Amino acid sequence: MRWSRYFIPTLREDPAEAEIVSHKFLLRGGYIRQVARGIYDYLPLGLRVIRKIESIVREELNAVGCHEVLLPVVIPAELWQESGRWPVYGKELLRLRDRNDREFCIGPTHEELITDIVRRDIRSYRDLPRNFYQIHTKFRDEIRPRFGLMRGREFIMKDGYSFHPSYKDLDDHYEVMRRAYIQIFARCGLATRVVEADSGPIGGTSSHEVVVLAETGEDAIVSCEQCEYAANMEKAETKIQRTEDRGQKTEKPKKLEKIHTPGMKSIEEVSKFLKSEPSQMIKTLIYLRDDGLVVALISGDREINEVKLKNAAKAQFVVLADEKTIRQLTNANVGFAGPVGLPKEVKGIGKVTVIADRGVEPIVNGNTGANETDYHLTGVCPGRDFHPEAYVDLAIVRENDSCPCCKNGKLKIQRGIEVGHIFKLGTKYSAAMKAHFLDEGGKEQPIIMGTYGIGIGRTAQAAIEQNYKEKGMVWPLPIAPFSVELISLSAEEEVRKTADQIYKELMDQKVDVLFDDREERAGVKFADGDLVGAPFQVLVGAKGLKEGKVELKNRKTGVVEKLSLRAVGEAISGLLCTPPSTPCGGLQTPSQTLLHQG
Amino acid sequence: MRWSRYFIPTLREDPAEAEIVSHKFLLRGGYIRQVARGIYDYLPLGLRVIRKIESIVREELNAVGCHEVLLPVVIPAELWQESGRWPVYGKELLRLRDRNDREFCIGPTHEELITDIVRRDIRSYRDLPRNFYQIHTKFRDEIRPRFGLMRGREFIMKDGYSFHPSYKDLDDHYEVMRRAYIQIFARCGLATRVVEADSGPIGGTSSHEVVVLAETGEDAIVSCEQCEYAANMEKAETKIQRTEDRGQKTEKPKKLEKIHTPGMKSIEEVSKFLKSEPSQMIKTLIYLRDDGLVVALISGDREINEVKLKNAAKAQFVVLADEKTIRQLTNANVGFAGPVGLPKEVKGIGKVTVIADRGVEPIVNGNTGANETDYHLTGVCPGRDFHPEAYVDLAIVRENDSCPCCKNGKLKIQRGIEVGHIFKLGTKYSAAMKAHFLDEGGKEQPIIMGTYGIGIGRTAQAAIEQNYKEKGMVWPLPIAPFSVELISLSAEEEVRKTADQIYKELMDQKVDVLFDDREERAGVKFADGDLVGAPFQVLVGAKGLKEGKVELKNRKTGVVEKLSLRAVGEAISGLLCTPPSTPCGGLQTPSQTLLHQG
Repeated sequence: MRWSRYFIPTLREDPAEAEIVSHKFLLRGGYIRQVARGIYDYLPLGLRVIRKIESIVREELNAVGCHEVLLPVVIPAELWQESGRWPVYGKELLRLRDRNDREFCIGPTHEELITDIVRRDIRSYRDLPRNFYQIHTKFRDEIRPRFGLMRGREFIMKDGYSFHPSYKDLDDHYEVMRRAYIQIFARCGLATRVVEADSGPIGGTSSHEVVVLAETGEDAIVSCEQCEYAANMEKAETKIQRTEDRGQKTEKPKKLEKIHTPGMKSIEEVSKFLKSEPSQMIKTLIYLRDDGLVVALISGDREINEVKLKNAAKAQFVVLADEKTIRQLTNANVGFAGPVGLPKEVKGIGKVTVIADRGVEPIVNGNTGANETDYHLTGVCPGRDFHPEAYVDLAIVRENDSCPCCKNGKLKIQRGIEVGHIFKLGTKYSAAMKAHFLDEGGKEQPIIMGTYGIGIGRTAQAAIEQNYKEKGMVWPLPIAPFSVELISLSAEEEVRKTADQIYKELMDQKVDVLFDDREERAGVKFADGDLVGAPFQVLVGAKGLKEGKVELKNRKTGVVEKLSLRAVGEAISGLLCTPPSTPCGGLQTPSQTLLHQG
Repeated sequence: MRWSRYFIPTLREDPAEAEIVSHKFLLRGGYIRQVARGIYDYLPLGLRVIRKIESIVREELNAVGCHEVLLPVVIPAELWQESGRWPVYGKELLRLRDRNDREFCIGPTHEELITDIVRRDIRSYRDLPRNFYQIHTKFRDEIRPRFGLMRGREFIMKDGYSFHPSYKDLDDHYEVMRRAYIQIFARCGLATRVVEADSGPIGGTSSHEVVVLAETGEDAIVSCEQCEYAANMEKAETKIQRTEDRGQKTEKPKKLEKIHTPGMKSIEEVSKFLKSEPSQMIKTLIYLRDDGLVVALISGDREINEVKLKNAAKAQFVVLADEKTIRQLTNANVGFAGPVGLPKEVKGIGKVTVIADRGVEPIVNGNTGANETDYHLTGVCPGRDFHPEAYVDLAIVRENDSCPCCKNGKLKIQRGIEVGHIFKLGTKYSAAMKAHFLDEGGKEQPIIMGTYGIGIGRTAQAAIEQNYKEKGMVWPLPIAPFSVELISLSAEEEVRKTADQIYKELMDQKVDVLFDDREERAGVKFADGDLVGAPFQVLVGAKGLKEGKVELKNRKTGVVEKLSLRAVGEAISGLLCTPPSTPCGGLQTPSQTLLHQG
């Protein structure tokens, strides 16, 4: 493609709207333009990247027997009412009415639609398993859209749904999909990590995220330095904290004692006053849930992971209670709550569930609020003075926590960007929407489902977060809008003619080349070239031509090689065909067939 | 692809919802499923056809220098308010509000969005011309969606927009696009006709439709048997009708006379009573328009083309007036209106514009309503007794009308399906939205625009309307979901093994083959094969194998050829590579570069 005949509106200045580097470079490079908050145009360069990612996704999914379909953007409310999502989805769902006043929504995901297809056209175990996917525009009315394509409202997503006659079959397929996802992102040239993710109150390791490691990532991921354990922050587990793990000696239980602690509300103040460690404090947090209250207990040196709490309490939601509710429960000001002597129910609110972190159980002679303003208790012993409904893992993982999986490993925390998510859905949708099949015994059963998503635009942007330099991105070759940028550095006849020849040669070789043939200064072309971000550049200048040479620059490594004119074509072909040892080294063939393929 | 591992849910029965054959076969063949009125899922086979059409469109547009972009589905109202379309577009526009109560619509076309890109990033004549297109899902809330993908509400469309520094440049590019469109549909294997279409009150031949000829088509198109003239019904012109054309002698003007015609309201009644021809009657129709009334005059043997009337009157709309309005204008019951002595204005309604068809001008001693209940006038002479503002072409064309372009040609009327539309937009959007450029003299001017649409789903369905047999469609090869269907006719070991071998051979040759490897009766496979509609079938049966033969069936011609096993691969390759003399004969290279390409 000749730049002069293409549309690459680069920007000289950093746009004010861009907070992170990938967003900035997408705007400055003329890849995308904002239309409204979280809604973007994909300009030609941007669309090229999207299409390359899509085509890798498609090849890998087809290779494992997935079927591509295309489902509507505008979805009738009836289907969402059947699944039960219509009343609960909230404001992220863009709802609308047609000319006949029928309700619709713009699809954020398509479980209902695919289940509707399956229930109409699949009846027997012989028709299973199936995996359908689509790559299409979706909409989620985010309260705070930001970071360009990273958290947009309208976005391009690959969503896939699998259907199985048994959990065993789902498990097998899930593993196939996990491997396909790893392969997809490897082929995109990205360094990713597959981490365990929360899968709701049912539990189990049935949800994984694929995360692009990047310092600027929105998500924190936890992994063990020694073993394979990796999870996102919501899911990451802690090892049971024994007293000795916390560096304390086992004490003899003392008597419960009430101490006057006037105005002391924080863990620090109270611990200092009592000459004790925060880890001896039994921190007591009160949450509102769907049908009552949850009291969460954790040692004073840790924080509550609310996702874990919600799952442990089997709650629809948990949200920190307001001051009034806390008073109703504890008869005390905020800051003096504790587990000892709490009522089992609060009138007008509902029952009270007490759940403790596993780290609370071994505490002996702990301290906690006395449920009386300006008083704390000391000598508190769990199991003697109070009885939580369960001791479970409620803590947010911290750097250097012990790994829950291996003996001596420590956990580290990295930043990353979630680009893919696979999830065992079970029968949530099939049961609600009556997508049944007849099993081998002729019995009707709900079909068992899995779901598999990839953020296509997000993947493009994550690729930049993982691969950029000061002045622009360096696209991984497999998803670069152009593999090579050819730049003529001056307008002299010889330079122009030679660059033209090289362009034709590369085009003949089917190299995906962008030729900056504009009558612009070399400085402008270099700056624009950084913003276009092709991994390789071929530079044709008067000086080099005197020696019969042009330069080949590897933008990632910065290495510049001088090539004789005759060697350019071959060198480029060589670069683009290096074996797939490095993920961004070249075009790889799709992974071997794992499912459904003869 | 093996059928047993694919998803082709064919239906045995004709679905009640399908009114036309293409819709029926798309449903029965497992190509699409209805989700709501005018909203469809594309199942795997349907999507394959869509993608093949898209890729032909893309290749041809890229070859003439168009740039592919992707614009949002959800569009902020502000842009539509700027262009002026927001208040006038009506109920076909699906409007909605986001969580912050801002107004949006689901894009039915994208003039505003593309103009918004251009006004931000194009400033100089040096950046022009440009042509941007996208292929994306659109929504139009049709009052009566029907015929499947033919008139859906949600649909896949290629919409393109060009930007020019001068009308000359637009004209040149328009011709390039016209040729590209012809090439696109030829490559899809469709017989089309490019016809002139109405281009609004500005007039000129600046709008064309590409129509797939099909007896079941919704649209009527008019073409000359002798010359190249072709237009759609709205646009088609009639030759000036001279008196002698109407087979009448020139008479001497008589005196105006008022005749009592009690209760005679129809042309037929009055003509019979007066012993005159309907062509001597000056039929007078009263229309409401945006700011008053239009009185349309036409000879009694013809009908009014309301599009022509609207354009001639330069009206926003014209709609037949109600009885009350007619009384206010004529002081008479309906059926007695005439052009003689009409007021120039009606209080409370507005001015009265009288426009006559060209066929009225040569009438001498015509008859018309007297604007008095139960009376008509005879001896009416246009130019003496009344003076219309203009004599223009207002008539609906009829079969065998004289061609407006050549001497002796007669017009014929065919049915067709509009699949493409190209249109010179001018500065409607650029002026309203201030998309200006600096011309060579440094003067700011609105950019001149053209627009170019292709209905992708409609093209798929039109292809069926043009290519079907009793039991199923016969896809044109270039857009067939599979080029060849391989069918094993029985479950015998020998048959299965041979079919398997042929399948592998064809796959190795990169033939797009569907292998019906199911354990089904031959009858079921034949019926399903007709519904899948591959243009070629390879049939492997026990009987043939005894002679070492399989059958190759051309489903279009019905010709069956016996082939030795060894010859199958070569025969198929031969079929798929026949030279492009017939449009559906094989893969063609994109048309030569016409614009913007080095």
